[in-house]
Amino acid sequence: MMFDKEMARKAAENLKAVREKKPLIHNITNFVVMNYTANILLSIGASPVMAHAQEEVEEMVSFAGALVLNIGTLAPDWIDSMIMAGKKANALNIPIILDPVGSGATRLRTESTNRIMSELHVSVVRGNASEILSLAHEDARTKGVDSIHSVDEATSVAYNLAKDLGSILAITGEVDLITDGDRIYRVHNGHALMGSVTGTGCAATATIGAFLAVDKDPVTATATALAYFGLAGEKGAEKTQTPGSFMIASWDALYTIDKKQLEEGARIQVG
Amino acid sequence: MMFDKEMARKAAENLKAVREKKPLIHNITNFVVMNYTANILLSIGASPVMAHAQEEVEEMVSFAGALVLNIGTLAPDWIDSMIMAGKKANALNIPIILDPVGSGATRLRTESTNRIMSELHVSVVRGNASEILSLAHEDARTKGVDSIHSVDEATSVAYNLAKDLGSILAITGEVDLITDGDRIYRVHNGHALMGSVTGTGCAATATIGAFLAVDKDPVTATATALAYFGLAGEKGAEKTQTPGSFMIASWDALYTIDKKQLEEGARIQVG
Amino acid sequence: MMFDKEMARKAAENLKAVREKKPLIHNITNFVVMNYTANILLSIGASPVMAHAQEEVEEMVSFAGALVLNIGTLAPDWIDSMIMAGKKANALNIPIILDPVGSGATRLRTESTNRIMSELHVSVVRGNASEILSLAHEDARTKGVDSIHSVDEATSVAYNLAKDLGSILAITGEVDLITDGDRIYRVHNGHALMGSVTGTGCAATATIGAFLAVDKDPVTATATALAYFGLAGEKGAEKTQTPGSFMIASWDALYTIDKKQLEEGARIQVG
Repeated sequence: MMFDKEMARKAAENLKAVREKKPLIHNITNFVVMNYTANILLSIGASPVMAHAQEEVEEMVSFAGALVLNIGTLAPDWIDSMIMAGKKANALNIPIILDPVGSGATRLRTESTNRIMSELHVSVVRGNASEILSLAHEDARTKGVDSIHSVDEATSVAYNLAKDLGSILAITGEVDLITDGDRIYRVHNGHALMGSVTGTGCAATATIGAFLAVDKDPVTATATALAYFGLAGEKGAEKTQTPGSFMIASWDALYTIDKKQLEEGARIQVG
Repeated sequence: MMFDKEMARKAAENLKAVREKKPLIHNITNFVVMNYTANILLSIGASPVMAHAQEEVEEMVSFAGALVLNIGTLAPDWIDSMIMAGKKANALNIPIILDPVGSGATRLRTESTNRIMSELHVSVVRGNASEILSLAHEDARTKGVDSIHSVDEATSVAYNLAKDLGSILAITGEVDLITDGDRIYRVHNGHALMGSVTGTGCAATATIGAFLAVDKDPVTATATALAYFGLAGEKGAEKTQTPGSFMIASWDALYTIDKKQLEEGARIQVG
Repeated sequence: MMFDKEMARKAAENLKAVREKKPLIHNITNFVVMNYTANILLSIGASPVMAHAQEEVEEMVSFAGALVLNIGTLAPDWIDSMIMAGKKANALNIPIILDPVGSGATRLRTESTNRIMSELHVSVVRGNASEILSLAHEDARTKGVDSIHSVDEATSVAYNLAKDLGSILAITGEVDLITDGDRIYRVHNGHALMGSVTGTGCAATATIGAFLAVDKDPVTATATALAYFGLAGEKGAEKTQTPGSFMIASWDALYTIDKKQLEEGARIQVG
């Protein structure tokens, strides 16, 4: 398989920019991953802030390079805060990334995701296949599930859904698929152990947030962030094969990976 | 001391079943331990979900193999969510385990525990001696404290309280005592360092939750889960004697302990 | 530079007292750092409890050796709980320490900090320079910022502000400055990597809380706690230079540092 050299260079460039600019990333996220997300953002060179009160989210987001919304332990008042912060972010042209944790599993999650998607302009949505598919209209959703018999079909569903929603979709899994309904990238970095640590998906989302803050093209920001995050997982798994020490080792790797290592290690496929 | 070989085999069998069935464990738990609990559940092979909104707990629990309730950073609306989720769990015959963190210390905690116990059928309650004793009626409680002058008397108090409540009680300490008011097991696994890491008790509770999802006998599920969790503490302490690295090492051990190791290492005493 | 030998001895003495008395430290703190803070308090020998419900904070704080207030992920009802707990603490002469995370960044944070400072007697406030400066009246604040052109001027601002507020101020940074408006101490312990782990400032605040519970002089309690916490950072950095493993190593160091090591390693400057 041929990986794109320009995208690998772009990944290295984005990492350098995050470390130099240290963008403030405003997270309205779930209780499970707050600590881990803040630590990951610090380790990659960004400045995390967690703030959810309606009395301050508009003010806080106005200082931010990106807004990360994550519905993992959602409650209605937190969704209201997300909408408030998101409207301000939209008005200020600050990119928003949404992690629709568990969307499709309960009505509250599916409806909250759809409310966020309809009331805000969301630059990027990152989730697993079933979370992303829950963004489709119900008939499209059913048709979607029924029609997916191959990787090609999954790609076509994502492609059309991204076009419909006007957002970039990042479906993460063994291979990550990123599309805006026009371009398509596949990221081959990552390691199976990442699924044994809670919050790796959420931390990947926050990492995309940091890259969105420095790269004006949200498609390349997303693909390069996922390559970087996945590469850190690979480096962690070179050191250890158990989840606790892997969590530490991959967190350390995000800190130590340098431009050269990322340019050499990023495995991003175009199309 | 003679440890029960059949129970050791049962422990190994339950661990295998958790890893094969990967039961969804629905946690309504405290802010301090959410991340750690999710990671522990993943490491043992279960699928954690944290959800507390009244708008979704009934739906979420209906997918679950067990419901874990933990009052560690309780507030009245969270207790309402626990009751809602618990009623649904009871209707669907999904086992509930309660961790009454700090019950007995404040009125809110004692009353919330008693409310949960009276409105729900709780399969198992795991706590330390004073938390468990707070479940007794006030005069029994006072009498209880006054009357405990020996291990035999503590056993007799637990035995009678379990019978009264119709729940299995798991009193964890240097030796864990598990009783349903009929059978009694004592688990001799564990290590003192576990007390130096926050949330080990809560994680033990969640581990019991995962075992409840695969073992129809909640008494054996509880005893075997505590043997497994304690063995992981022992393995962790073989590697390191300081709390941070011990947290990681014992988490790793939960992942690496195999059937054979658990069958050999479980120290469960009958009676 | 000459470091004070008596203060180093006092640090060792305070550490011994915390380990012997195991004071209960009541934290009303932010979601990001709850787990880490609880673990740090356990590792230094204290007993952490996190409780925020208005229904129990007065009861809980009455058992505590110190009350730690931290506005990191604040919401108005949590501030109300802080005020309630704080009034009870004041009535019972239980020392309060405030960590005004992000004060100065949003109106909600600045106003909440000022409300806490005006409604409660706060023994110690620990923050970075901009958080501490946000405690000043607006004109003093502006004047303050404008007038700080040297370390001497920063010291003079802190000195006067501590006097105005009637609280001890601990401004942490490369060198920590502690003053009550009369005495001034500077703590030279610490390591730059501490800034790469989320919650180290909050954990330092909680450590001061534990020392306040055993040392009646809050100025020496604060300076010695910061020397101890900083020394653990130095020890951690001797083992590793990456943030994940550093978090673990410095946590371990808090547990292993003994009286002798602290007496030798504390670098506290008087004046």
